[in-house]
Amino acid sequence: MSKNPPAALTELEPDFVAGLKAIFEQRIVFNSVLGLTIASLRPDGVSGRIAMKPQLVGHYAYNRLHGGVISAGLDAMGGLACMAAIGARHLDEPPADRLQRFAKLGTIDLRVDYLRPAMGEQFELRAEVLRLGSRVASTRMEFLGADGKLLSTGSAAYIVS
Amino acid sequence: MSKNPPAALTELEPDFVAGLKAIFEQRIVFNSVLGLTIASLRPDGVSGRIAMKPQLVGHYAYNRLHGGVISAGLDAMGGLACMAAIGARHLDEPPADRLQRFAKLGTIDLRVDYLRPAMGEQFELRAEVLRLGSRVASTRMEFLGADGKLLSTGSAAYIVS
Amino acid sequence: MSKNPPAALTELEPDFVAGLKAIFEQRIVFNSVLGLTIASLRPDGVSGRIAMKPQLVGHYAYNRLHGGVISAGLDAMGGLACMAAIGARHLDEPPADRLQRFAKLGTIDLRVDYLRPAMGEQFELRAEVLRLGSRVASTRMEFLGADGKLLSTGSAAYIVS
Amino acid sequence: MSKNPPAALTELEPDFVAGLKAIFEQRIVFNSVLGLTIASLRPDGVSGRIAMKPQLVGHYAYNRLHGGVISAGLDAMGGLACMAAIGARHLDEPPADRLQRFAKLGTIDLRVDYLRPAMGEQFELRAEVLRLGSRVASTRMEFLGADGKLLSTGSAAYIVS
Repeated sequence: MSKNPPAALTELEPDFVAGLKAIFEQRIVFNSVLGLTIASLRPDGVSGRIAMKPQLVGHYAYNRLHGGVISAGLDAMGGLACMAAIGARHLDEPPADRLQRFAKLGTIDLRVDYLRPAMGEQFELRAEVLRLGSRVASTRMEFLGADGKLLSTGSAAYIVS
Repeated sequence: MSKNPPAALTELEPDFVAGLKAIFEQRIVFNSVLGLTIASLRPDGVSGRIAMKPQLVGHYAYNRLHGGVISAGLDAMGGLACMAAIGARHLDEPPADRLQRFAKLGTIDLRVDYLRPAMGEQFELRAEVLRLGSRVASTRMEFLGADGKLLSTGSAAYIVS
Repeated sequence: MSKNPPAALTELEPDFVAGLKAIFEQRIVFNSVLGLTIASLRPDGVSGRIAMKPQLVGHYAYNRLHGGVISAGLDAMGGLACMAAIGARHLDEPPADRLQRFAKLGTIDLRVDYLRPAMGEQFELRAEVLRLGSRVASTRMEFLGADGKLLSTGSAAYIVS
Repeated sequence: MSKNPPAALTELEPDFVAGLKAIFEQRIVFNSVLGLTIASLRPDGVSGRIAMKPQLVGHYAYNRLHGGVISAGLDAMGGLACMAAIGARHLDEPPADRLQRFAKLGTIDLRVDYLRPAMGEQFELRAEVLRLGSRVASTRMEFLGADGKLLSTGSAAYIVS
């Protein structure tokens, strides 16, 4: 990465951002089932949102979000963070070519720590890439309540080439 | 557990099984979004099924199951395995009382290893409890293709009291 | 925790700190094999150090620290962070009583992400408790080079009661 | 892998086995601190042993093995299982060339579940490769007491190319 400007300073082009948003929110169908939308998209970190709805309930007695919504959302966000970092690293490629890299991205493994019950109307998800290698990327994710309280954390490894 | 007969030999009563099935497949709403159903339910292990459907697609280009369906399904199955083991341990309690314990079950953390792309019409999920303590249970899970090929593995810890 | 002052503001007494240091650095023998020492000890986070030495080498060709030194060190630090947080929560108990709680602390599970090879003369380890419950605590850890570069991250759950 | 005979049926040559044993038990110095030795080495799975000794104690009050010995041992065994599988896949290469691949092997991440306290005179470690890709391998590991009781389980991903 030393040949590139620091990822945090690189601006992603509107075409790439729009393309990534369309893939992430619509074409990855299960993301739309979760209602997972992108809130911000930068090479050094991404954020998203999920709004509570009846289909996402895990514990019927307490109106809690299902843990699977959290693991699925964090996995998706970690992958999105990889795509944003990859997008910034290969700025010499046309946006459409870089978006193709999404098809090659795969989660190797995922860990989620459930700290507190996820109750509320709205949730925020954050992800950052801790290391982007030529073959593997490692990410760290957080799942927060509307009040900013940390509800869950995650970490994951992705194959990126 | 030494006072009880070996878990594997204990039969769960029909009332308890029916109650657990109703909670798991219907009242935990997100499980029904996944289409996750119980195939077998024994104190020493449980199995379930998920059928492919358009909403569960992750990678639009390849018709792959979304990794979040796998993590959500494995987390749910690990919890179900805990419930089956708890159900067998407390046979002296009426089924309804034991089912109440589901409300207190919570995932502490979850790890999923994604080995191979999940493509196909039908998937099988398995979970077993490696250790059921008075406060924490540890489980191991598998996600298989219709041909029995191992696609993903998982492990999780649950708070059970 | 609502009855206590915020953990970060609580001062741990010298007796408790000295006792914890003696247990951690000497009586937990394998910590002394690692050469793991406490650098700072506060209710909201702890830090430690490991100096490179020949016994800790994993990859003989590159003089890299063995990954097991990292996992062992991060596990130990997560447990220490729990003890510091527990120590601050139960200030009404004599230090010796609180130190007894160390005997009941057990790691439920641990995840380590290895980001970059650990080469150098000195390493820093950090841990913080994300949630301290009455039965389970969740922690997050980091393993850094002497230059502050993040080499590995970890997360773990502990049984605390 | 379809071009090769099933890994389980491939015999590793004595030269390769002897070379791997020398690297693993002696040149990876920290393994020798753990006293970790290879008991069996086959393409479809490996096993090893650790004998209790005072330096490996974690909990002084109970003579328990330190959790870090378990995580370090399981990480090492997972890597060894990768090497055995790689050794069987590249039988066309001279043993010395294949042993060089050890230098390129790196743990991506590791999870350990601690099920029961590790007390006793002797412990057995097992590891198998669940999937060996061209870039990443996934493994599953077990840590057992002398009586065959399962004390800890692990899973890990390795970069293999």
